[in-house]
Amino acid sequence: MRLARRGAPGYELPLVEVDGTLYDASCVGDFGPDFWAAGGPGQLRCLLDEGHLTPVTVDESVRYGAPVATASAVICIGQNYAAHAAESGAEPPKNPIVFFKTPNTIAGPNDDVTLARGSEKTDWEVELAIVIGSRAAYCDSIEDAARHIGGYVLANDLSERAFQFDVSGGQWSKGKCSPGYMPLGPWIVTADEFDPSDVRLRSWVNGEGRQDSRTSDMIFSCAEIVRDLSQYMQLEPGDVISTGTPQGVAVSGRFRYLQPDDVVEVEIDGLGRQRQMYRAWRA
Amino acid sequence: MRLARRGAPGYELPLVEVDGTLYDASCVGDFGPDFWAAGGPGQLRCLLDEGHLTPVTVDESVRYGAPVATASAVICIGQNYAAHAAESGAEPPKNPIVFFKTPNTIAGPNDDVTLARGSEKTDWEVELAIVIGSRAAYCDSIEDAARHIGGYVLANDLSERAFQFDVSGGQWSKGKCSPGYMPLGPWIVTADEFDPSDVRLRSWVNGEGRQDSRTSDMIFSCAEIVRDLSQYMQLEPGDVISTGTPQGVAVSGRFRYLQPDDVVEVEIDGLGRQRQMYRAWRA
Repeated sequence: MRLARRGAPGYELPLVEVDGTLYDASCVGDFGPDFWAAGGPGQLRCLLDEGHLTPVTVDESVRYGAPVATASAVICIGQNYAAHAAESGAEPPKNPIVFFKTPNTIAGPNDDVTLARGSEKTDWEVELAIVIGSRAAYCDSIEDAARHIGGYVLANDLSERAFQFDVSGGQWSKGKCSPGYMPLGPWIVTADEFDPSDVRLRSWVNGEGRQDSRTSDMIFSCAEIVRDLSQYMQLEPGDVISTGTPQGVAVSGRFRYLQPDDVVEVEIDGLGRQRQMYRAWRA
Repeated sequence: MRLARRGAPGYELPLVEVDGTLYDASCVGDFGPDFWAAGGPGQLRCLLDEGHLTPVTVDESVRYGAPVATASAVICIGQNYAAHAAESGAEPPKNPIVFFKTPNTIAGPNDDVTLARGSEKTDWEVELAIVIGSRAAYCDSIEDAARHIGGYVLANDLSERAFQFDVSGGQWSKGKCSPGYMPLGPWIVTADEFDPSDVRLRSWVNGEGRQDSRTSDMIFSCAEIVRDLSQYMQLEPGDVISTGTPQGVAVSGRFRYLQPDDVVEVEIDGLGRQRQMYRAWRA
């Protein structure tokens, strides 16, 4: 099934799409940690089978919110594609590299992005993100880890490279947390309906291609990332783990950074497409 | 005023202490983000002035929970004391260095700590932590930043140094997020009643002194940290910012790391004292 949230910011309606039909899912609550902790997709399936969900039609013009209402943690993996590590001037990592975004970076997939005040180096990063379906700690195998994945969602892990590298003392999160710097969506596809092992992911700036790779080039697979992280932290239901970006970003030196009026699009096959207009910061 | 949460895990009663008298504060809800967003301390003051709070007595044997029920982010500052930077083998930083702990690391001040599975390098870090009182973004002065500080709380920023340095690719959070690795409390002192500029902070292992410094040795003051962070992220009500630890930790090589049955105590003048027993991980 696919999960989406549609409507104005703060007033999104949770929706579930099954076999091409859209249903109002608000009876199970919004798509946040409590939804996942309660086994939300299973509840929806049960309600659907018993005819308790109401089919709805939502006009295509209605805004998509992020399909993640909030999360206890937004975890990111760095340099998980060998060619991106190389363009960033780094060796491929021996273990998954972890940094965080604050949950208030989450934004709708097509919302305008306000460039951070003073930003001259805002960069795009198309990424496949995991949504954790159930609490995971000390997973002992890839198979165990995979069972804790609830779904997948398209992410744009926006990064301010001067904040990330020049004023950070080497800890990257400072360049990852500006408001709105984590567009998510348009929808979550539940893990039973999405194979993350070899899908194409792409980005464009003003219609020109930038990134174009496949998740088969990831150094650490989604399940391996969950297994590894679970040794160092307890992953909570609804947590988001963005699994890294492939080559083709501005920090490589091959492209200019984002400016006001730029349009960024990102896409992953099966997870939809995002389109953001970039705006200058104003007091 | 002082804010505490007392009772068994998950069943803590929020309490406020004013002029030595303890009152049930549960009428304003638990001490999480919503409490701070609603101006909780001002509400409590108003209710108290009108005689609407009930004085209570709580036996000293009743557990202290963390006075922070949850937070949207637990932010930490690294190497904020010059002598600690030196013992860690680093230069004093030019800007605050930021990393994160997951909110599920928060634990009561005297709760037993289960050493992370496989941990051989768990280290103590007594720290002064800020609780954000109101949303802060792009603060333009120290004075503006200071107005967003709601209170202060004692923290032990427990760290697993092998996780932090050996398997992290240089991003520290992997060594900061094991379950229970952020004891907070016993209480929050609101900002109007605590001057963070020059207080003593100390730690002991099995009764032997380890850290003994003063916050006047901090490189970046509390308000300066808030001002700086607000340029890179939007700080939310109830967020916790732990402001770094002074010299005297195990990673210096001068002391052994923590082992099962060790007892760690940490204390900051005016913010109380914590005492944790360390336990081996068991499946």
